[in-house]
Amino acid sequence: MPVFDRVALLGLGLIGSSIARAARACGAAGRVIASDISADVRRRAEALGIADEIAATNAEAAAHSDLVIACVPVGQSGTVAADIASHLKTGAIVSDVGSVKASVLADMAPHFGPGVHFIPAHPVAGTEYSGPEAGFAELFLDRWCILTPPPEAEAGAVGRLATFWQALGTNVETMSAQHHDLVLAITSHVPHLIAYTIVGTADDLETVTRSEVMKFSAGGFRDFTRIAASDPTMWRDVFLHNREAVLEMLGRFNEDIAALARAIRWGDGDTLFNLFSRTRAIRRGIVEIGQDSPAPDFGRPHPSLPLEPLPRPYAADSE
Amino acid sequence: MPVFDRVALLGLGLIGSSIARAARACGAAGRVIASDISADVRRRAEALGIADEIAATNAEAAAHSDLVIACVPVGQSGTVAADIASHLKTGAIVSDVGSVKASVLADMAPHFGPGVHFIPAHPVAGTEYSGPEAGFAELFLDRWCILTPPPEAEAGAVGRLATFWQALGTNVETMSAQHHDLVLAITSHVPHLIAYTIVGTADDLETVTRSEVMKFSAGGFRDFTRIAASDPTMWRDVFLHNREAVLEMLGRFNEDIAALARAIRWGDGDTLFNLFSRTRAIRRGIVEIGQDSPAPDFGRPHPSLPLEPLPRPYAADSE
Repeated sequence: MPVFDRVALLGLGLIGSSIARAARACGAAGRVIASDISADVRRRAEALGIADEIAATNAEAAAHSDLVIACVPVGQSGTVAADIASHLKTGAIVSDVGSVKASVLADMAPHFGPGVHFIPAHPVAGTEYSGPEAGFAELFLDRWCILTPPPEAEAGAVGRLATFWQALGTNVETMSAQHHDLVLAITSHVPHLIAYTIVGTADDLETVTRSEVMKFSAGGFRDFTRIAASDPTMWRDVFLHNREAVLEMLGRFNEDIAALARAIRWGDGDTLFNLFSRTRAIRRGIVEIGQDSPAPDFGRPHPSLPLEPLPRPYAADSE
Repeated sequence: MPVFDRVALLGLGLIGSSIARAARACGAAGRVIASDISADVRRRAEALGIADEIAATNAEAAAHSDLVIACVPVGQSGTVAADIASHLKTGAIVSDVGSVKASVLADMAPHFGPGVHFIPAHPVAGTEYSGPEAGFAELFLDRWCILTPPPEAEAGAVGRLATFWQALGTNVETMSAQHHDLVLAITSHVPHLIAYTIVGTADDLETVTRSEVMKFSAGGFRDFTRIAASDPTMWRDVFLHNREAVLEMLGRFNEDIAALARAIRWGDGDTLFNLFSRTRAIRRGIVEIGQDSPAPDFGRPHPSLPLEPLPRPYAADSE
């Protein structure tokens, strides 16, 4: 029994195309109709066969659908809402997947009439890749989806949307849009800002070459480059739409790093050691609740060691 | 044909125990003698059978050895050098694996007589785990080992040490200790400092609970917790011994993040978008030269999706 007979996915990037795959794999949707503003993406999605039907417009996909999910950068939420509002059937649930919730609520809600249930949502999952080819059905498994229903939302509609996400393998939690934006500022937005920044800083140095930065990146830097390879449009929109919370959390981070810089300058090893010991506990907790792998190095593949020695000519070249 | 007949490893943490395993697996050492100041670590290493012989003291391990590698936090380098100096055989090569090179050179070199070849080294590889059980023979494969021989070092000795590291699967590059410390400050030390800081910042918040930080960590934060789970003693020593370069690089980072904060505050989307696009190229370069996996999400394991829908009771609990 599908949770919804007809599910419309507006936007076929990593998240939209993963929902399409997951909903069909687990049977949560009777029928998946997808759209994308890019004709090229629509053609590629058609070729991939990830939806039952590819619609030419968002309005066409949304019409007659029981669940409509906007899977677009948050800066486009208002436009999508305006496009579909007059085509929605009475009783339809409209949701989204954006990383910011207060601005999405403000941008989309005013477009919908009283017969539509608007319930913003955010599945906290992703990879550094973008586009319909990057999606996969397992993306949401054991992750969390946060629902931020407005106070007037109908409990039954919220419950049906939760059941849909649970069928895709996610845990569901509800909270206010304001609280969501604060939580994600520290768990996602500021970490991305920091990663983008340090990668840019390294690239700008005149004393260390780009080749050196890349070759010696296994010392920690390469981890940051993965996050800094995330979709530029999506992330520009996140920062522009969650400004207050991001700047607040960034202010905290700046205070803390200033204190550490001072400890380094004055040789205060105890302050460093105490922090470095405390942060291990958080890592353990995240692994224990199943939100990361206990495998060393995230389980990065290590090639097998050849059993024979490999004497190579000495190549002590230096730049 | 082993590169060295007798190799002494002083310290059996992640790096020392990985060298022991790798050197025996590829035959680069005729015999591996290991020591550790902790009796408990010596017992565990004995039980693991990772060396041909476990010596009770560093001096005992170093005596009669052709290659002696100190595998200890950089703050202990001077003590180790003092312990072994009078026991070294003429012609022995002494090296280390520390993440800082100028301070290691200054702390160790004065202890050695003219018959000893002292060549500091740094294999840029590791995981977030510590101790003899965490080591594995493949750790260095396809990574880089940086040698920082002092100007008076004998080319033949530098070549033999390079051959040893190449036999373990690493690429070798030589540079000055000062340049090494600048390169590693940006590719390793400042990234670690940032990761430790943001994890501490998140843990200190009164508006977001630790449980929320952990549950929603898949949005990016969890990547930082892995780095922030690295060995506290090792990292305290790195920051105390590479102070100038770390503070210099941190200053650059702080300027750049201030510029981004300003762009966010004033809604300057172009500045954000341009940086976020530029950083993708560095990631591509790192994957292309084999310093990271192209697999999404570092190749983190994703469980398979059950083929049957899993309707669970609606659990829209909130804190």
